[in-house]
Amino acid sequence: MARQSIIVVNTGNGKGKSSAAFGVMNRGWARGWTVGVVQFLKSGKWKVGERKLAEHLGIEWHTLGDGFTWESTDMDETIAKGRHAWDVANTMLASGDYDLLILDEATYAVKYGWVDVEAMVEGLKNRSPRTNVVLTGRNAPQEIIDLADTVTEMVKVKHAYDQGISAMKGIEY
Amino acid sequence: MARQSIIVVNTGNGKGKSSAAFGVMNRGWARGWTVGVVQFLKSGKWKVGERKLAEHLGIEWHTLGDGFTWESTDMDETIAKGRHAWDVANTMLASGDYDLLILDEATYAVKYGWVDVEAMVEGLKNRSPRTNVVLTGRNAPQEIIDLADTVTEMVKVKHAYDQGISAMKGIEY
Repeated sequence: MARQSIIVVNTGNGKGKSSAAFGVMNRGWARGWTVGVVQFLKSGKWKVGERKLAEHLGIEWHTLGDGFTWESTDMDETIAKGRHAWDVANTMLASGDYDLLILDEATYAVKYGWVDVEAMVEGLKNRSPRTNVVLTGRNAPQEIIDLADTVTEMVKVKHAYDQGISAMKGIEY
Repeated sequence: MARQSIIVVNTGNGKGKSSAAFGVMNRGWARGWTVGVVQFLKSGKWKVGERKLAEHLGIEWHTLGDGFTWESTDMDETIAKGRHAWDVANTMLASGDYDLLILDEATYAVKYGWVDVEAMVEGLKNRSPRTNVVLTGRNAPQEIIDLADTVTEMVKVKHAYDQGISAMKGIEY
């Protein structure tokens, strides 16, 4: 049987990893797909625009810490929240409810030790055949690169930061 | 005076150059910006999703050949259309009406000889101080890289094509 879905990884130290993922979100929306987003890093200003558009388009969006309920006293809260984000993503992957899931900055969940790479690989492998995945973040683990169908490394040639221009609202967040 | 706008270039042989540009379109929209798009290559299926979303969001969109009126018999029609696309872009750049212009696959206008690189550089330099630009396409000319503030090279690590998977609706177009 032909494969029904693919895994796309955007990694590297350059700009555009998440932007390109949200460009794919646009296409999925335009095709009438059911799209979901899990954002693995949380920060005050970043992804505000993307989330606003997702809400405007009726796209489901989860950010690290959303829906997290503290039940343990023997784990660091950041780790617990990171694992919860992966649990949410893993459940969405297996559910069969989505044509496209964007796991934004999911590589950091592995890098920071919140989730074992083997667990993430298993979750991706065991996803619903229907569900395409775009996974972003620096330092994508080799195991995930091996599993993915399309991998792009975004390489910084130059960046406005280098010329002393700070991150611009509307362009970078 | 502090610079008011920047030029972003997404180049390289990997995926994500245009997707990332349309991710920036999302952010601009979310900030209430006036955004315009000029698409320098035209093809039946590509960018259909992006255009659909742009229209949904009220973003102005021009594709190569749109509004072109044939007035000459001494030029190849493709070249004439390409120059027309650049004329449209150049007018938008100078107008002061836009916070963000996406010049999608504009590098090909230089590569195919429709527009001199010097003319494109001049048009970018003389743009309204208000207007941020995201310019995409393979083989960005060095003169445009030199002028740009942020340049990312999208490098192909692997691609689903290589495994015999054809371009997927919703993911790549």
